Amino acid sequence: MKSIIIDVGGCDRPDRLIDGVVQAAKKHGDYAFVFVGDKAIVEPHIPSGLNNVSVEHAPTVITNDDSPTHALRQKSDSSLVTAFNILNGSEDAIGLFSGGSTGAVLTGATLLVGRIKGVHRPVLASLMPTSIPGKVVCIADSGANVDSKPEFMAQFALMASEYIKAGFGIEKPVVGLLSVGTEDKKGDERTKAAHALIKELPLEFAGNMEARDALTGVYDVIVCDGFSGNVLVKSTEGTAKMVMGKVKEALTSSLKAKLGALMMKKALKSLKASMDYHSYGGAPFLGVKKIVVKGHGSTNEVSAAASVDMIISLHENRVLETIEKSISGAAEPKADVVQ
Amino acid sequence: MKSIIIDVGGCDRPDRLIDGVVQAAKKHGDYAFVFVGDKAIVEPHIPSGLNNVSVEHAPTVITNDDSPTHALRQKSDSSLVTAFNILNGSEDAIGLFSGGSTGAVLTGATLLVGRIKGVHRPVLASLMPTSIPGKVVCIADSGANVDSKPEFMAQFALMASEYIKAGFGIEKPVVGLLSVGTEDKKGDERTKAAHALIKELPLEFAGNMEARDALTGVYDVIVCDGFSGNVLVKSTEGTAKMVMGKVKEALTSSLKAKLGALMMKKALKSLKASMDYHSYGGAPFLGVKKIVVKGHGSTNEVSAAASVDMIISLHENRVLETIEKSISGAAEPKADVVQ
Repeated sequence: MKSIIIDVGGCDRPDRLIDGVVQAAKKHGDYAFVFVGDKAIVEPHIPSGLNNVSVEHAPTVITNDDSPTHALRQKSDSSLVTAFNILNGSEDAIGLFSGGSTGAVLTGATLLVGRIKGVHRPVLASLMPTSIPGKVVCIADSGANVDSKPEFMAQFALMASEYIKAGFGIEKPVVGLLSVGTEDKKGDERTKAAHALIKELPLEFAGNMEARDALTGVYDVIVCDGFSGNVLVKSTEGTAKMVMGKVKEALTSSLKAKLGALMMKKALKSLKASMDYHSYGGAPFLGVKKIVVKGHGSTNEVSAAASVDMIISLHENRVLETIEKSISGAAEPKADVVQ
Repeated sequence: MKSIIIDVGGCDRPDRLIDGVVQAAKKHGDYAFVFVGDKAIVEPHIPSGLNNVSVEHAPTVITNDDSPTHALRQKSDSSLVTAFNILNGSEDAIGLFSGGSTGAVLTGATLLVGRIKGVHRPVLASLMPTSIPGKVVCIADSGANVDSKPEFMAQFALMASEYIKAGFGIEKPVVGLLSVGTEDKKGDERTKAAHALIKELPLEFAGNMEARDALTGVYDVIVCDGFSGNVLVKSTEGTAKMVMGKVKEALTSSLKAKLGALMMKKALKSLKASMDYHSYGGAPFLGVKKIVVKGHGSTNEVSAAASVDMIISLHENRVLETIEKSISGAAEPKADVVQ
């Protein structure tokens, strides 16, 4: 039986993460789920008779305040290190989900699980909602790699495309390169060099794009250095919060407005749902030898269950194999054209 | 009489830009306004008897499709080149406003007007609204300088702070450095080096900040390389547009919602106004020897008039002198502490 390892430590609400995974475990009876964390926290949430779930006790937690490399070495009894060890220990363990410290999860995945052959740097591929209902856009890299080199970014494009194919069934994901203008020559030195590399890859490359078009639904994948990708994801989050805050203010600004808002309750609820990033689950860290999904610190039931769905979908669609092929294919020298 | 030069070419709606400046000219009777552009377009908009306004004919326009450096050299009869020549030709000409090609305006300002002594690179300082009503935040640099060096960014911090002091009367503008986390050690190599330099400047430096907090109103100035600054400004714009689009959809999704929206008309109108970037005017390009303000391509009456107000406020508060002092002060070796 294939198994999925769940690190319970380091997230804001372990109870909600556990409950979400339990829901997923009921749905996916042909997979085993191994919770790793404090037994006293996990066990009360496991319904009796749920046979595909087990708990591995790990008493300590790696937090955001820990230095990732140091903590991974020192806290060998932490939930995260234990989870990685179980993941590495068995062929049947296909993936890991954690809502813990981003730095520790990514560093652990790279150091303990290891990179797929040929991968320069694994990429954190975050999803954002778009204007088109149900359609998401993948930001690669969203913050794992600052100071990326152009050749890293070319691989981000390949890996994220395979992810979108496997995870969303989109045959030819449209790839845009984040820049300061749409013209080929626009951008900093890194982006211009990345453009030249990505152009040569077997991808649906739409060229440079601007941050204002990130959410239009035109792009499936947006490739960027982790610094600007992080700015893109976080400014989208901050702006949506600010605008929704102002909308809420407007809705409650007078008695008349309040009455109006009451009449729109249903519409406003569906508006809120359409922008809830929890429904997409966490972000996969692509380019390591097993499927690793990093949940938001504020992971809830919905995003935990969605993250499990994502791991299973990526596994069943063999995303790691296609990434490996794609990377080694891109590395091969081009064959001469036979006349 | 001090004069302000208005380049009418290259914006989407010259008529609206002209009308906005005419309004400003009526308000600021002690300043002269020189419109530069096609007389046939400008003159019909000038009310007879408005004595502080004149028109200088320039038949051609530099567009976004032109290469800035090439166009500035070749199109000597363009409105932009003519406007820069008038600006340079007189001590009394204090500033220029243009809604034309960003590349051409910034390149023209640097090459034709010239940098203030000691300035590495002039900075495009764009404003964005925040959660706090009436409070704006300045993004420096918002796209003029990709591939900035840390020492450029330290000067961006100084120049933008002087701008916020002069333009908004904020005595000690709070400066944040855009990064991927708030800890000092977080960021790419450039940001870490910039952090070390800015820390030593006589500024209200709040350290690193994340893009999600850009609009909270905590910061007056956000310092960044022009690439990530451009991503920040444009993703804010794109996200606000996307969310407001979804709000509009919700408001019209059913008869009941439409009736509700009708009751909230006033509240929704003030919501829209609170997010209208036109009210802030254009973005000053700081670090050149005269005041140059770059308007949005879609400049309307409100933003044109606000841009004129900005030029006058920066002039009357001697922002160029304080920038020069601030830059030369920062370049001076620190005095030894006398025991």
